[in-house]
Amino acid sequence: MRFAAFRKDGAMGLAVAGAGGDYRGLMQGEAGYPGDLTALVTGGAEALAGAGRALEGGAPVDLDAVELLPPLPNPGKIICVGLNYADHSAESGFAVPTYPTIFARFASSLIGHGAPILRPRVSDQLDYEGELVAVIGRGGRHIPKASALDHVVAYSVFNDGSVRDYQLKAPQWTVGKNFDGTGAFGPVLVTADELPPGCQGLGIQTRLNGQVVQESNIDHLIFDVATLVSTLSEAFTLSPGDIIVTGTPSGVGLARKPPLWMKPGDVCEVEIERVGLLRNPVEDEAGRQRAAA
Amino acid sequence: MRFAAFRKDGAMGLAVAGAGGDYRGLMQGEAGYPGDLTALVTGGAEALAGAGRALEGGAPVDLDAVELLPPLPNPGKIICVGLNYADHSAESGFAVPTYPTIFARFASSLIGHGAPILRPRVSDQLDYEGELVAVIGRGGRHIPKASALDHVVAYSVFNDGSVRDYQLKAPQWTVGKNFDGTGAFGPVLVTADELPPGCQGLGIQTRLNGQVVQESNIDHLIFDVATLVSTLSEAFTLSPGDIIVTGTPSGVGLARKPPLWMKPGDVCEVEIERVGLLRNPVEDEAGRQRAAA
Repeated sequence: MRFAAFRKDGAMGLAVAGAGGDYRGLMQGEAGYPGDLTALVTGGAEALAGAGRALEGGAPVDLDAVELLPPLPNPGKIICVGLNYADHSAESGFAVPTYPTIFARFASSLIGHGAPILRPRVSDQLDYEGELVAVIGRGGRHIPKASALDHVVAYSVFNDGSVRDYQLKAPQWTVGKNFDGTGAFGPVLVTADELPPGCQGLGIQTRLNGQVVQESNIDHLIFDVATLVSTLSEAFTLSPGDIIVTGTPSGVGLARKPPLWMKPGDVCEVEIERVGLLRNPVEDEAGRQRAAA
Repeated sequence: MRFAAFRKDGAMGLAVAGAGGDYRGLMQGEAGYPGDLTALVTGGAEALAGAGRALEGGAPVDLDAVELLPPLPNPGKIICVGLNYADHSAESGFAVPTYPTIFARFASSLIGHGAPILRPRVSDQLDYEGELVAVIGRGGRHIPKASALDHVVAYSVFNDGSVRDYQLKAPQWTVGKNFDGTGAFGPVLVTADELPPGCQGLGIQTRLNGQVVQESNIDHLIFDVATLVSTLSEAFTLSPGDIIVTGTPSGVGLARKPPLWMKPGDVCEVEIERVGLLRNPVEDEAGRQRAAA
Protein backbone atom coordinates (compact mmCIF):
# COMPACT_ATOMS: atom_id res chain seq x y z
CA MET A 1 0.00 0.00 0.00
CA ARG A 2 0.98 3.61 -0.60
CA PHE A 3 -0.01 6.19 2.03
CA ALA A 4 -0.02 9.97 1.59
CA ALA A 5 -0.30 12.41 4.51
CA PHE A 6 -1.73 15.75 3.46
CA ARG A 7 -3.31 19.03 4.55
CA LYS A 8 -6.31 20.57 2.85
CA ASP A 9 -8.14 23.72 3.94
CA GLY A 10 -6.19 23.64 7.20
CA ALA A 11 -7.23 20.09 8.12
CA MET A 12 -5.04 16.97 8.12
CA GLY A 13 -5.89 13.95 6.03
CA LEU A 14 -4.57 10.55 5.09
CA ALA A 15 -5.03 8.81 1.74
CA VAL A 16 -4.23 5.41 0.27
CA ALA A 17 -3.68 4.44 -3.35
CA GLY A 18 -6.15 2.03 -4.92
CA ALA A 19 -5.30 -0.65 -7.43
CA GLY A 20 -5.51 1.84 -10.28
CA GLY A 21 -3.21 4.33 -8.57
CA ASP A 22 -5.91 6.83 -7.62
CA TYR A 23 -6.02 7.94 -4.01
CA ARG A 24 -8.95 7.90 -1.61
CA GLY A 25 -8.84 9.18 1.93
CA LEU A 26 -10.35 10.60 5.06
CA MET A 27 -9.84 13.82 6.98
CA GLN A 28 -8.95 13.86 10.67
CA GLY A 29 -12.24 13.93 12.61
CA GLU A 30 -14.21 12.14 9.87
CA ALA A 31 -15.85 8.85 10.80
CA GLY A 32 -13.45 5.98 10.15
CA TYR A 33 -10.28 8.14 10.09
CA PRO A 34 -7.66 5.62 11.21
CA GLY A 35 -5.12 8.00 12.82
CA ASP A 36 -1.94 9.48 11.42
CA LEU A 37 0.99 7.52 10.02
CA THR A 38 3.03 7.92 13.21
CA ALA A 39 0.36 6.03 15.14
CA LEU A 40 -0.22 3.52 12.34
CA VAL A 41 3.45 2.70 11.89
CA THR A 42 3.66 2.07 15.63
CA GLY A 43 0.84 -0.42 15.16
CA GLY A 44 2.87 -2.21 12.49
CA ALA A 45 1.83 -3.86 9.26
CA GLU A 46 -1.53 -4.95 10.64
CA ALA A 47 -2.55 -1.42 11.66
CA LEU A 48 -1.48 -0.12 8.27
CA ALA A 49 -3.52 -2.79 6.48
CA GLY A 50 -6.60 -1.90 8.52
CA ALA A 51 -6.09 1.77 7.80
CA GLY A 52 -5.76 1.07 4.11
CA ARG A 53 -9.14 -0.66 4.06
CA ALA A 54 -10.75 2.22 5.96
CA LEU A 55 -9.26 4.87 3.68
CA GLU A 56 -10.39 3.04 0.53
CA GLY A 57 -13.95 3.86 1.68
CA GLY A 58 -13.18 7.57 1.72
CA ALA A 59 -13.49 10.30 -0.87
CA PRO A 60 -11.17 10.65 -3.90
CA VAL A 61 -8.07 12.75 -3.12
CA ASP A 62 -6.18 14.53 -5.89
CA LEU A 63 -2.59 14.59 -4.58
CA ASP A 64 -1.81 17.51 -6.87
CA ALA A 65 -4.56 19.60 -5.27
CA VAL A 66 -3.50 19.14 -1.64
CA GLU A 67 -0.39 19.98 0.39
CA LEU A 68 1.60 16.80 0.87
CA LEU A 69 3.31 16.53 4.26
CA PRO A 70 6.32 14.53 5.42
CA PRO A 71 4.75 11.09 5.99
CA LEU A 72 6.16 11.12 9.53
CA PRO A 73 6.52 14.74 10.65
CA ASN A 74 8.35 14.05 13.90
CA PRO A 75 10.20 10.71 13.90
CA GLY A 76 11.73 9.65 17.22
CA LYS A 77 15.03 9.29 15.43
CA ILE A 78 16.10 10.53 12.01
CA ILE A 79 19.21 8.42 11.49
CA CYS A 80 21.19 9.50 8.43
CA VAL A 81 23.92 7.43 6.84
CA GLY A 82 26.86 9.10 5.11
CA LEU A 83 29.35 7.62 2.66
CA ASN A 84 27.18 4.56 2.00
CA TYR A 85 27.86 4.22 -1.74
CA ALA A 86 31.48 3.52 -2.72
CA ASP A 87 31.44 6.02 -5.59
CA HIS A 88 30.13 8.82 -3.34
CA SER A 89 32.59 7.98 -0.58
CA ALA A 90 35.42 8.24 -3.13
CA GLU A 91 34.19 11.55 -4.61
CA SER A 92 34.02 12.91 -1.04
CA GLY A 93 37.65 11.99 -0.39
CA PHE A 94 37.00 9.11 2.02
CA ALA A 95 38.10 5.47 1.87
CA VAL A 96 35.38 2.84 1.57
CA PRO A 97 34.02 2.70 5.12
CA THR A 98 34.11 -0.44 7.25
CA TYR A 99 31.46 0.84 9.67
CA PRO A 100 28.43 3.06 8.92
CA THR A 101 28.95 6.82 9.20
CA ILE A 102 25.92 8.13 11.09
CA PHE A 103 24.67 11.63 11.70
CA ALA A 104 21.28 12.88 12.84
CA ARG A 105 18.67 15.24 11.53
CA PHE A 106 16.24 17.11 13.70
CA ALA A 107 12.59 17.02 12.65
CA SER A 108 12.65 20.81 12.34
CA SER A 109 14.42 20.38 8.99
CA LEU A 110 11.70 18.23 7.36
CA ILE A 111 9.46 19.31 4.49
CA GLY A 112 7.04 17.39 2.30
CA HIS A 113 6.82 16.80 -1.45
CA GLY A 114 6.21 20.06 -3.28
CA ALA A 115 7.33 22.32 -0.42
CA PRO A 116 10.28 24.57 -1.17
CA ILE A 117 13.80 23.56 -0.27
CA LEU A 118 15.19 26.77 1.24
CA ARG A 119 18.53 28.26 0.23
CA PRO A 120 19.62 29.80 3.52
CA ARG A 121 20.36 33.45 4.04
CA VAL A 122 23.90 32.65 5.21
CA SER A 123 25.12 30.37 2.39
CA ASP A 124 24.71 29.60 -1.29
CA GLN A 125 26.32 26.14 -1.06
CA LEU A 126 23.02 24.23 -1.11
CA ASP A 127 23.46 20.66 -2.37
CA TYR A 128 21.10 17.74 -3.13
CA GLU A 129 21.42 14.11 -1.99
CA GLY A 130 18.85 11.56 -3.17
CA GLU A 131 18.29 8.73 -0.69
CA LEU A 132 16.10 5.76 0.26
CA VAL A 133 14.31 5.91 3.63
CA ALA A 134 13.56 2.78 5.68
CA VAL A 135 10.86 3.14 8.35
CA ILE A 136 11.03 1.05 11.52
CA GLY A 137 7.70 -0.63 12.34
CA ARG A 138 8.83 -3.04 15.03
CA GLY A 139 11.33 -1.91 17.64
CA GLY A 140 14.21 -3.84 19.10
CA ARG A 141 17.77 -3.99 20.33
CA HIS A 142 20.51 -6.36 19.21
CA ILE A 143 18.46 -7.33 16.17
CA PRO A 144 20.08 -10.16 14.16
CA LYS A 145 20.72 -9.31 10.52
CA ALA A 146 18.76 -12.38 9.39
CA SER A 147 15.52 -10.98 10.84
CA ALA A 148 16.33 -7.26 10.53
CA LEU A 149 13.99 -6.63 7.59
CA ASP A 150 11.07 -7.87 9.69
CA HIS A 151 11.53 -4.61 11.64
CA VAL A 152 11.11 -2.40 8.54
CA VAL A 153 7.48 -1.67 7.78
CA ALA A 154 7.77 0.84 4.91
CA TYR A 155 10.03 2.81 2.61
CA SER A 156 10.10 6.32 1.22
CA VAL A 157 12.33 8.84 -0.57
CA PHE A 158 14.50 11.63 0.89
CA ASN A 159 16.45 14.60 -0.41
CA ASP A 160 19.13 15.16 2.23
CA GLY A 161 19.69 18.82 1.34
CA SER A 162 23.13 19.84 2.60
CA VAL A 163 24.65 23.26 3.21
CA ARG A 164 28.22 22.32 2.41
CA ASP A 165 30.24 25.16 3.90
CA TYR A 166 28.38 24.76 7.21
CA GLN A 167 28.70 20.96 7.01
CA LEU A 168 32.47 21.32 6.79
CA LYS A 169 33.09 24.18 9.26
CA ALA A 170 33.73 21.63 12.04
CA PRO A 171 34.59 17.92 12.29
CA GLN A 172 30.90 17.01 12.73
CA TRP A 173 28.45 17.65 9.88
CA THR A 174 25.32 18.22 11.97
CA VAL A 175 24.74 21.95 11.40
CA GLY A 176 25.08 21.75 7.61
CA LYS A 177 22.60 18.85 7.59
CA ASN A 178 19.93 20.57 9.65
CA PHE A 179 19.05 23.89 8.08
CA ASP A 180 15.32 24.63 8.13
CA GLY A 181 13.64 23.53 4.92
CA THR A 182 16.37 21.20 3.68
CA GLY A 183 15.11 17.69 4.47
CA ALA A 184 12.57 16.71 1.83
CA PHE A 185 10.71 13.48 2.69
CA GLY A 186 8.00 11.76 0.67
CA PRO A 187 5.87 11.89 -1.34
CA VAL A 188 4.39 8.76 0.28
CA LEU A 189 5.14 5.77 2.49
CA VAL A 190 5.15 2.46 0.64
CA THR A 191 4.66 -0.65 2.75
CA ALA A 192 7.51 -3.13 2.63
CA ASP A 193 5.32 -5.95 1.28
CA GLU A 194 5.00 -4.06 -2.04
CA LEU A 195 8.76 -3.91 -2.61
CA PRO A 196 11.71 -6.27 -2.90
CA PRO A 197 13.43 -7.10 0.44
CA GLY A 198 15.49 -4.08 1.49
CA CYS A 199 14.54 -2.45 -1.85
CA GLN A 200 17.36 -4.42 -3.48
CA GLY A 201 17.61 -3.91 -7.21
CA LEU A 202 15.65 -0.66 -7.36
CA GLY A 203 17.08 2.24 -9.35
CA ILE A 204 17.61 5.64 -7.68
CA GLN A 205 17.98 8.86 -9.64
CA THR A 206 18.28 12.56 -8.76
CA ARG A 207 17.44 15.23 -11.35
CA LEU A 208 18.08 18.96 -11.12
CA ASN A 209 15.92 20.90 -13.56
CA GLY A 210 15.37 17.66 -15.46
CA GLN A 211 19.08 16.84 -15.83
CA VAL A 212 20.17 13.54 -14.26
CA VAL A 213 22.79 14.37 -11.61
CA GLN A 214 22.81 11.13 -9.59
CA GLU A 215 22.02 7.64 -10.86
CA SER A 216 22.58 4.39 -9.05
CA ASN A 217 20.87 1.33 -7.64
CA ILE A 218 19.99 0.33 -4.06
CA ASP A 219 22.11 -2.78 -4.73
CA HIS A 220 25.14 -0.50 -4.42
CA LEU A 221 24.58 0.38 -0.76
CA ILE A 222 27.74 -0.56 1.15
CA PHE A 223 25.65 -1.24 4.26
CA ASP A 224 22.27 -2.50 3.09
CA VAL A 225 19.05 -1.91 5.01
CA ALA A 226 19.27 -5.18 6.95
CA THR A 227 22.88 -4.49 7.93
CA LEU A 228 22.03 -0.96 9.06
CA VAL A 229 19.12 -2.10 11.24
CA SER A 230 21.20 -4.84 12.81
CA THR A 231 24.36 -2.76 13.29
CA LEU A 232 22.61 0.31 14.71
CA SER A 233 20.64 -1.80 17.16
CA GLU A 234 23.90 -2.94 18.75
CA ALA A 235 24.13 0.60 20.13
CA PHE A 236 20.56 1.71 20.75
CA THR A 237 16.98 0.58 20.79
CA LEU A 238 15.15 1.15 17.52
CA SER A 239 11.51 2.14 17.98
CA PRO A 240 8.50 2.22 15.66
CA GLY A 241 8.52 5.43 13.64
CA ASP A 242 12.30 5.82 13.66
CA ILE A 243 13.62 6.35 10.14
CA ILE A 244 16.92 5.46 8.54
CA VAL A 245 17.97 7.70 5.65
CA THR A 246 20.33 5.33 3.95
CA GLY A 247 22.85 7.50 2.09
CA THR A 248 23.42 8.99 -1.33
CA PRO A 249 25.28 7.84 -4.46
CA SER A 250 27.87 9.88 -6.37
CA GLY A 251 27.12 13.00 -8.34
CA VAL A 252 26.57 15.55 -5.58
CA GLY A 253 27.14 19.19 -6.45
CA LEU A 254 30.08 19.54 -4.05
CA ALA A 255 32.14 16.98 -5.98
CA ARG A 256 31.68 18.70 -9.36
CA LYS A 257 34.13 21.12 -10.94
CA PRO A 258 32.91 23.77 -10.71
CA PRO A 259 30.53 22.87 -7.85
CA LEU A 260 26.83 22.74 -8.74
CA TRP A 261 24.59 24.38 -6.13
CA MET A 262 20.80 24.48 -6.05
CA LYS A 263 19.43 27.99 -6.43
CA PRO A 264 16.03 29.68 -6.29
CA GLY A 265 13.90 28.70 -9.28
CA ASP A 266 15.44 25.24 -9.56
CA VAL A 267 13.40 22.06 -9.24
CA CYS A 268 15.02 19.00 -7.67
CA GLU A 269 13.59 15.50 -8.09
CA VAL A 270 14.60 12.27 -6.40
CA GLU A 271 13.03 9.13 -7.81
CA ILE A 272 13.31 5.58 -6.56
CA GLU A 273 11.78 2.92 -8.76
CA ARG A 274 8.44 1.66 -7.34
CA VAL A 275 8.87 3.82 -4.21
CA GLY A 276 8.14 7.28 -5.52
CA LEU A 277 9.12 10.57 -7.08
CA LEU A 278 9.91 13.38 -4.63
CA ARG A 279 9.86 16.82 -6.27
CA ASN A 280 10.70 20.14 -4.61
CA PRO A 281 11.24 23.64 -5.93
CA VAL A 282 14.08 25.71 -4.48
CA GLU A 283 13.40 29.11 -2.92
CA ASP A 284 15.42 31.70 -1.10
CA GLU A 285 14.96 31.87 2.66
CA ALA A 286 15.47 35.61 2.56
CA GLY A 287 12.92 36.07 -0.24
CA ARG A 288 10.33 34.05 1.63
CA GLN A 289 10.81 36.16 4.72
CA ARG A 290 10.39 39.33 2.68
CA ALA A 291 7.26 37.88 1.10
CA ALA A 292 5.87 36.99 4.53
CA ALA A 293 6.71 40.36 6.05
CA MET B 1 13.25 27.77 41.12
CA ARG B 2 14.45 24.18 41.01
CA PHE B 3 12.11 21.59 39.48
CA ALA B 4 12.41 17.82 39.81
CA ALA B 5 10.47 15.38 37.63
CA PHE B 6 9.96 12.03 39.30
CA ARG B 7 8.07 8.74 39.34
CA LYS B 8 6.64 7.14 42.46
CA ASP B 9 4.55 3.98 42.65
CA GLY B 10 4.23 4.08 38.85
CA ALA B 11 2.82 7.62 38.73
CA MET B 12 4.54 10.76 37.46
CA GLY B 13 5.05 13.78 39.66
CA LEU B 14 6.67 17.19 39.67
CA ALA B 15 8.26 18.93 42.64
CA VAL B 16 9.74 22.34 43.37
CA ALA B 17 12.30 23.33 45.99
CA GLY B 18 11.21 25.72 48.71
CA ALA B 19 13.36 28.42 50.26
CA GLY B 20 14.86 25.91 52.69
CA GLY B 21 15.76 23.45 49.93
CA ASP B 22 13.03 20.93 50.75
CA TYR B 23 10.82 19.80 47.87
CA ARG B 24 7.05 19.81 47.67
CA GLY B 25 5.07 18.53 44.73
CA LEU B 26 2.00 17.08 43.08
CA MET B 27 1.31 13.88 41.21
CA GLN B 28 -0.13 13.83 37.70
CA GLY B 29 -3.93 13.71 38.08
CA GLU B 30 -3.93 15.49 41.44
CA ALA B 31 -5.83 18.80 41.67
CA GLY B 32 -3.52 21.67 40.78
CA TYR B 33 -0.92 19.53 38.98
CA PRO B 34 0.52 22.08 36.53
CA GLY B 35 1.65 19.72 33.74
CA ASP B 36 5.06 18.26 33.00
CA LEU B 37 8.24 20.25 32.43
CA THR B 38 8.01 19.86 28.66
CA ALA B 39 4.70 21.73 28.66
CA LEU B 40 5.84 24.24 31.27
CA VAL B 41 9.07 25.09 29.47
CA THR B 42 7.02 25.70 26.33
CA GLY B 43 5.01 28.17 28.37
CA GLY B 44 8.21 29.98 29.32
CA ALA B 45 9.27 31.64 32.58
CA GLU B 46 5.73 32.70 33.43
CA ALA B 47 4.32 29.17 33.20
CA LEU B 48 7.20 27.87 35.31
CA ALA B 49 6.59 30.53 37.95
CA GLY B 50 2.90 29.63 38.13
CA ALA B 51 3.77 25.94 38.36
CA GLY B 52 6.20 26.66 41.17
CA ARG B 53 3.48 28.36 43.19
CA ALA B 54 1.07 25.45 42.60
CA LEU B 55 3.65 22.84 43.58
CA GLU B 56 4.56 24.65 46.80
CA GLY B 57 1.04 23.81 47.94
CA GLY B 58 1.64 20.09 47.44
CA ALA B 59 2.94 17.39 49.75
CA PRO B 60 6.59 17.06 50.81
CA VAL B 61 8.67 14.98 48.36
CA ASP B 62 11.84 13.24 49.47
CA LEU B 63 13.98 13.19 46.31
CA ASP B 64 15.99 10.28 47.71
CA ALA B 65 12.84 8.17 47.99
CA VAL B 66 11.53 8.64 44.44
CA GLU B 67 12.86 7.80 40.97
CA LEU B 68 14.18 11.01 39.43
CA LEU B 69 13.57 11.28 35.69
CA PRO B 70 15.31 13.30 32.99
CA PRO B 71 13.68 16.73 33.46
CA LEU B 72 12.73 16.71 29.75
CA PRO B 73 12.39 13.08 28.65
CA ASN B 74 11.95 13.78 24.94
CA PRO B 75 13.41 17.14 23.84
CA GLY B 76 12.68 18.18 20.27
CA LYS B 77 16.42 18.59 19.77
CA ILE B 78 19.29 17.36 21.90
CA ILE B 79 22.09 19.51 20.50
CA CYS B 80 25.50 18.45 21.83
CA VAL B 81 28.62 20.55 21.49
CA GLY B 82 32.03 18.90 21.17
CA LEU B 83 35.47 20.41 21.69
CA ASN B 84 34.09 23.45 23.53
CA TYR B 85 36.83 23.81 26.14
CA ALA B 86 40.33 24.55 24.80
CA ASP B 87 42.01 22.05 27.15
CA HIS B 88 39.66 19.23 26.09
CA SER B 89 40.01 20.09 22.41
CA ALA B 90 43.80 19.86 22.81
CA GLU B 91 43.70 16.54 24.71
CA SER B 92 41.47 15.16 21.92
CA GLY B 93 44.01 16.12 19.27
CA PHE B 94 42.05 18.98 17.71
CA ALA B 95 43.00 22.62 17.19
CA VAL B 96 40.93 25.23 19.04
CA PRO B 97 37.75 25.36 16.96
CA THR B 98 36.56 28.49 15.20
CA TYR B 99 32.99 27.18 14.81
CA PRO B 100 31.02 24.94 17.19
CA THR B 101 31.29 21.19 16.63
CA ILE B 102 27.75 19.85 16.89
CA PHE B 103 26.41 16.33 17.13
CA ALA B 104 23.01 15.05 18.20
CA ARG B 105 21.70 12.68 20.77
CA PHE B 106 18.47 10.78 20.45
CA ALA B 107 16.14 10.86 23.46
CA SER B 108 16.40 7.06 23.66
CA SER B 109 19.80 7.50 25.31
CA LEU B 110 18.54 9.64 28.24
CA ILE B 111 18.43 8.55 31.89
CA GLY B 112 17.75 10.48 35.08
CA HIS B 113 19.77 11.07 38.25
CA GLY B 114 20.38 7.80 40.07
CA ALA B 115 19.61 5.55 37.11
CA PRO B 116 22.47 3.32 35.97
CA ILE B 117 24.77 4.36 33.17
CA LEU B 118 25.05 1.16 31.14
CA ARG B 119 28.34 -0.29 29.98
CA PRO B 120 27.29 -1.83 26.67
CA ARG B 121 27.61 -5.47 25.80
CA VAL B 122 29.78 -4.66 22.78
CA SER B 123 32.41 -2.36 24.33
CA ASP B 124 34.24 -1.60 27.57
CA GLN B 125 35.38 1.90 26.43
CA LEU B 126 32.71 3.76 28.43
CA ASP B 127 33.79 7.34 29.21
CA TYR B 128 32.31 10.25 31.21
CA GLU B 129 31.87 13.86 30.11
CA GLY B 130 30.46 16.39 32.58
CA GLU B 131 28.52 19.22 30.90
CA LEU B 132 26.18 22.16 31.43
CA VAL B 133 22.73 21.98 29.76
CA ALA B 134 20.90 25.10 28.55
CA VAL B 135 17.13 24.72 27.98
CA ILE B 136 15.40 26.81 25.34
CA GLY B 137 12.21 28.44 26.61
CA ARG B 138 11.51 30.85 23.79
CA GLY B 139 12.02 29.75 20.19
CA GLY B 140 13.46 31.69 17.33
CA ARG B 141 15.63 31.88 14.23
CA HIS B 142 18.48 34.27 13.55
CA ILE B 143 18.61 35.24 17.21
CA PRO B 144 21.08 38.08 17.89
CA LYS B 145 23.75 37.25 20.45
CA ALA B 146 22.80 40.30 22.52
CA SER B 147 19.34 38.88 23.25
CA ALA B 148 20.21 35.18 23.04
CA LEU B 149 20.05 34.51 26.78
CA ASP B 150 16.43 35.73 26.81
CA HIS B 151 15.68 32.47 24.94
CA VAL B 152 17.20 30.25 27.68
CA VAL B 153 14.71 29.49 30.44
CA ALA B 154 16.65 27.01 32.57
CA TYR B 155 19.86 25.06 33.10
CA SER B 156 20.75 21.56 34.18
CA VAL B 157 23.63 19.05 34.30
CA PHE B 158 24.54 16.28 31.85
CA ASN B 159 26.90 13.33 31.74
CA ASP B 160 27.53 12.78 28.03
CA GLY B 161 28.55 9.13 28.40
CA SER B 162 30.58 8.15 25.36
CA VAL B 163 31.49 4.73 23.97
CA ARG B 164 34.83 5.73 22.54
CA ASP B 165 35.62 2.89 20.13
CA TYR B 166 32.17 3.27 18.54
CA GLN B 167 32.51 7.07 18.52
CA LEU B 168 35.69 6.74 16.48
CA LYS B 169 34.76 3.87 14.11
CA ALA B 170 33.62 6.42 11.49
CA PRO B 171 34.13 10.14 10.81
CA GLN B 172 30.90 11.02 12.62
CA TRP B 173 30.60 10.34 16.37
CA THR B 174 26.84 9.75 16.52
CA VAL B 175 26.74 6.02 17.30
CA GLY B 176 29.23 6.22 20.17
CA LYS B 177 27.23 9.11 21.64
CA ASN B 178 23.86 7.36 21.55
CA PHE B 179 24.10 4.04 23.32
CA ASP B 180 21.07 3.27 25.48
CA GLY B 181 21.58 4.37 29.07
CA THR B 182 24.50 6.73 28.47
CA GLY B 183 22.98 10.23 28.56
CA ALA B 184 22.47 11.18 32.20
CA PHE B 185 20.44 14.39 32.61
CA GLY B 186 19.41 16.11 35.85
CA PRO B 187 18.88 15.95 38.73
CA VAL B 188 16.71 19.07 38.31
CA LEU B 189 16.00 22.07 36.07
CA VAL B 190 17.06 25.38 37.58
CA THR B 191 15.40 28.49 36.16
CA ALA B 192 17.76 30.99 34.61
CA ASP B 193 16.76 33.78 37.00
CA GLU B 194 18.47 31.91 39.84
CA LEU B 195 21.84 31.78 38.09
CA PRO B 196 24.38 34.17 36.60
CA PRO B 197 23.79 35.01 32.91
CA GLY B 198 24.89 32.01 30.83
CA CYS B 199 26.07 30.37 34.08
CA GLN B 200 29.30 32.36 33.74
CA GLY B 201 31.69 31.85 36.61
CA LEU B 202 30.23 28.59 37.88
CA GLY B 203 32.59 25.72 38.63
CA ILE B 204 32.06 22.32 36.98
CA GLN B 205 33.55 19.11 38.33
CA THR B 206 33.29 15.42 37.46
CA ARG B 207 34.17 12.77 40.02
CA LEU B 208 34.57 9.03 39.46
CA ASN B 209 34.27 7.08 42.69
CA GLY B 210 34.92 10.33 44.55
CA GLN B 211 38.14 11.17 42.67
CA VAL B 212 38.06 14.47 40.77
CA VAL B 213 38.63 13.65 37.08
CA GLN B 214 37.42 16.89 35.45
CA GLU B 215 37.52 20.38 36.95
CA SER B 216 36.86 23.62 35.15
CA ASN B 217 34.62 26.67 35.04
CA ILE B 218 31.81 27.63 32.67
CA ASP B 219 33.89 30.77 31.95
CA HIS B 220 36.17 28.51 29.92
CA LEU B 221 33.57 27.60 27.28
CA ILE B 222 35.00 28.58 23.89
CA PHE B 223 31.47 29.24 22.61
CA ASP B 224 29.42 30.45 25.55
CA VAL B 225 25.68 29.85 25.87
CA ALA B 226 24.69 33.11 24.18
CA THR B 227 27.05 32.44 21.26
CA LEU B 228 25.72 28.91 20.85
CA VAL B 229 22.09 30.02 20.80
CA SER B 230 22.82 32.77 18.30
CA THR B 231 25.11 30.70 16.06
CA LEU B 232 22.88 27.63 15.93
CA SER B 233 19.83 29.72 15.12
CA GLU B 234 21.53 30.88 11.92
CA ALA B 235 20.92 27.34 10.67
CA PHE B 236 17.69 26.20 12.25
CA THR B 237 14.75 27.29 14.34
CA LEU B 238 15.21 26.72 18.04
CA SER B 239 12.00 25.69 19.82
CA PRO B 240 10.93 25.59 23.46
CA GLY B 241 12.16 22.40 25.06
CA ASP B 242 15.21 22.04 22.82
CA ILE B 243 18.34 21.51 24.89
CA ILE B 244 21.96 22.45 24.25
CA VAL B 245 24.52 20.23 25.97
CA THR B 246 27.41 22.62 25.96
CA GLY B 247 30.55 20.47 25.97
CA THR B 248 33.05 19.00 28.41
CA PRO B 249 36.39 20.18 29.84
CA SER B 250 39.63 18.18 29.87
CA GLY B 251 40.20 15.05 31.90
CA VAL B 252 38.14 12.50 29.98
CA GLY B 253 39.14 8.85 30.34
CA LEU B 254 40.13 8.52 26.67
CA ALA B 255 42.91 11.10 27.03
CA ARG B 256 44.56 9.40 30.03
CA LYS B 257 47.45 7.01 29.84
CA PRO B 258 46.34 4.34 30.37
CA PRO B 259 42.74 5.21 29.47
CA LEU B 260 40.27 5.31 32.37
CA TRP B 261 36.94 3.66 31.58
CA MET B 262 33.82 3.51 33.72
CA LYS B 263 32.98 -0.02 34.84
CA PRO B 264 30.18 -1.74 36.73
CA GLY B 265 30.18 -0.77 40.40
CA ASP B 266 31.58 2.72 39.72
CA VAL B 267 29.70 5.87 40.66
CA CYS B 268 30.07 8.94 38.46
CA GLU B 269 29.13 12.43 39.65
CA VAL B 270 28.93 15.67 37.70
CA GLU B 271 28.46 18.79 39.78
CA ILE B 272 27.93 22.35 38.60
CA GLU B 273 27.96 25.00 41.29
CA ARG B 274 24.41 26.23 42.10
CA VAL B 275 22.94 24.05 39.30
CA GLY B 276 23.14 20.58 40.77
CA LEU B 277 24.89 17.32 41.46
CA LEU B 278 24.10 14.50 39.01
CA ARG B 279 25.06 11.07 40.36
CA ASN B 280 24.78 7.77 38.51
CA PRO B 281 26.03 4.28 39.25
CA VAL B 282 27.49 2.22 36.41
CA GLU B 283 26.05 -1.18 35.53
CA ASP B 284 26.66 -3.76 32.89
CA GLU B 285 24.07 -3.96 30.11
CA ALA B 286 24.59 -7.70 29.85
CA GLY B 287 24.18 -8.19 33.61
CA ARG B 288 20.97 -6.19 33.63
CA GLN B 289 19.58 -8.30 30.83
CA ARG B 290 20.48 -11.46 32.70
CA ALA B 291 18.89 -10.05 35.83
CA ALA B 292 15.71 -9.20 33.93
CA ALA B 293 15.54 -12.63 32.23
